[in-house]
Amino acid sequence: LQVFSCNSNPALSKAICDHIGIPLGDAHVGKFSDGEIHVKLNESVRGSDVYVIQSTCDPVNQHLMELLVMVDALRRASAGTINVVIPYYGYARQDRKTRARDPITAKLVANLIETAGADRVITMDLHATQIQGFFDIPVDNLMGVPILGDYFKSKGLTDVVVVSPDHGGVIRARRLAERLEAPIAIIDKRRPEPNVAEVMNIVGDVKGKTAIIIDDIIDTAGTITLAVNALMEHGAKEVYTCCTHPVFSGPAIDRIRDSNLKEMVVTDTIPLSENKQLDKVKVLSVAA
Amino acid sequence: LQVFSCNSNPALSKAICDHIGIPLGDAHVGKFSDGEIHVKLNESVRGSDVYVIQSTCDPVNQHLMELLVMVDALRRASAGTINVVIPYYGYARQDRKTRARDPITAKLVANLIETAGADRVITMDLHATQIQGFFDIPVDNLMGVPILGDYFKSKGLTDVVVVSPDHGGVIRARRLAERLEAPIAIIDKRRPEPNVAEVMNIVGDVKGKTAIIIDDIIDTAGTITLAVNALMEHGAKEVYTCCTHPVFSGPAIDRIRDSNLKEMVVTDTIPLSENKQLDKVKVLSVAA
Ligand SMILES: Nc1ncnc2c1ncn2[C@@H]1O[C@H](COP(=O)(O)O)[C@@H](O)[C@H]1O
Ligand SMILES: Nc1ncnc2c1ncn2[C@@H]1O[C@H](COP(=O)(O)O)[C@@H](O)[C@H]1O
Repeated sequence: LQVFSCNSNPALSKAICDHIGIPLGDAHVGKFSDGEIHVKLNESVRGSDVYVIQSTCDPVNQHLMELLVMVDALRRASAGTINVVIPYYGYARQDRKTRARDPITAKLVANLIETAGADRVITMDLHATQIQGFFDIPVDNLMGVPILGDYFKSKGLTDVVVVSPDHGGVIRARRLAERLEAPIAIIDKRRPEPNVAEVMNIVGDVKGKTAIIIDDIIDTAGTITLAVNALMEHGAKEVYTCCTHPVFSGPAIDRIRDSNLKEMVVTDTIPLSENKQLDKVKVLSVAA
Repeated sequence: LQVFSCNSNPALSKAICDHIGIPLGDAHVGKFSDGEIHVKLNESVRGSDVYVIQSTCDPVNQHLMELLVMVDALRRASAGTINVVIPYYGYARQDRKTRARDPITAKLVANLIETAGADRVITMDLHATQIQGFFDIPVDNLMGVPILGDYFKSKGLTDVVVVSPDHGGVIRARRLAERLEAPIAIIDKRRPEPNVAEVMNIVGDVKGKTAIIIDDIIDTAGTITLAVNALMEHGAKEVYTCCTHPVFSGPAIDRIRDSNLKEMVVTDTIPLSENKQLDKVKVLSVAA
């Protein structure tokens, strides 16, 4: 067994190797002067079961290409099996045609990974579980809920309600609610008329309760911070938010800072750059 | 016939459409807040012969992914044939294993383009003509020599010698020399001992002549500016330099500015950003 890392998640890769008790594989993933990726494997992988850890987070195209070039190098170096660990699978929201002539980039990415020569994919909380079917190779889709759930359990919160920010996330919310032995609520966004702002109705009882909103991806944090407001207006005592994948692009970090959410709990499938770290953002590791 | 452009060469794409006499296809190739590429085709392509123009120049991974997502969108929108025009084919220098465990990224890129759904590739001055064989679809590899040659002919230079900067470029130099009815010379780099700087010997006669060095790619401009010096030291009257693909990364533009080369003639397969434009850099268009 050998584990290699590209450049998206160096700390997570180190933590995973420490957990297994092996050193990280010796490889260089760099750039030439013109920006082309340059991969150099410094140890033999012949016949070995190799794991490559790389999230396809921002800069997504560079991270994806690093992964593909690494897989190409491993395959040509006669690795036994190539198992790609993609903690955050980028382009997952482009998983269907929402309009005529849309690309389906999540499927394209699946094809690219198979073409490069991967034998198996291990990922977490795919935005749509259908993406497993975009691959012809085995895909393990791990869940962030146990890690998030254990954390909230350890806080000893009482009178909790788990909230899904939309109808698509109800199953995830129910999983967390089961772990916390709590009820669920659902935010039901409606646009009363065209060109009028959406109204957030809340299905379920949140009055006086500690609400925990759970999502898979938090990107610009617009929906989630509006949901926090809506819950507070409906009488929630305090509102925690959590997700597996903190994309945190654009205005996200300002919105989180300005929101009266109690805590934002995320995992390290996407590492937070220094300017995205806040006291109220708590990072849990998926390594163990 | 429809022509679409991604973001690498908007001016060239416009010039090509003007030359053919059709409007550029209406498509949006942009980015979401988190850096993921977003392609939107605003017109039907059903059954049509579609050309997509995109060089995979710096930022190479983004430009490559734009091309792949565009091809995916076109294929799913039932385009008749998808012809990708890649004026500059990035990753072409990673075309073989130079060391054990090297990737062969030029071949990986070929596989990615085919996987996305291209039916045919049109490119210019591939760094290695073997890359045509990396594809199973037809590849047209156009030459920059006619354009460069016509330009030098129009200058009415006399007593010219065409110089190849290395042994790999001799065929290209000979093609230009034939057009200019000139002899050739070759720069023969030798390292007298390990860890001693290379010496540039010149095979052929350059004394008192107007030398024109031709290469396919000029990247950091290190070799070419040293070659200019070597030719001047060997008595050349003046030295022109030319190439098809002005990658111009890192110190390139400073080296060109500081070199006593007479003129650097390039094509627009890679557009020069404003900070890479110099009076002595002449750009010819491959559009016509
Ligand atoms: N990277 C992205 N950032 C923002 N929106 C996206 C992104 N990728 C896809 N989308 C859009 O998000 C929608 C899908 O999200 P969802 O309904 O949550 O599955 C579609 O309308 C997509 O066009
Ligand atoms: N983008 C790049 N920038 C600089 N060197 C490269 C690049 N891609 C490949 N190479 C190296 O260039 C050499 C091949 O160049 P050549 O001998 O001119 O075909 C190999 O040693 C490659 O490792």
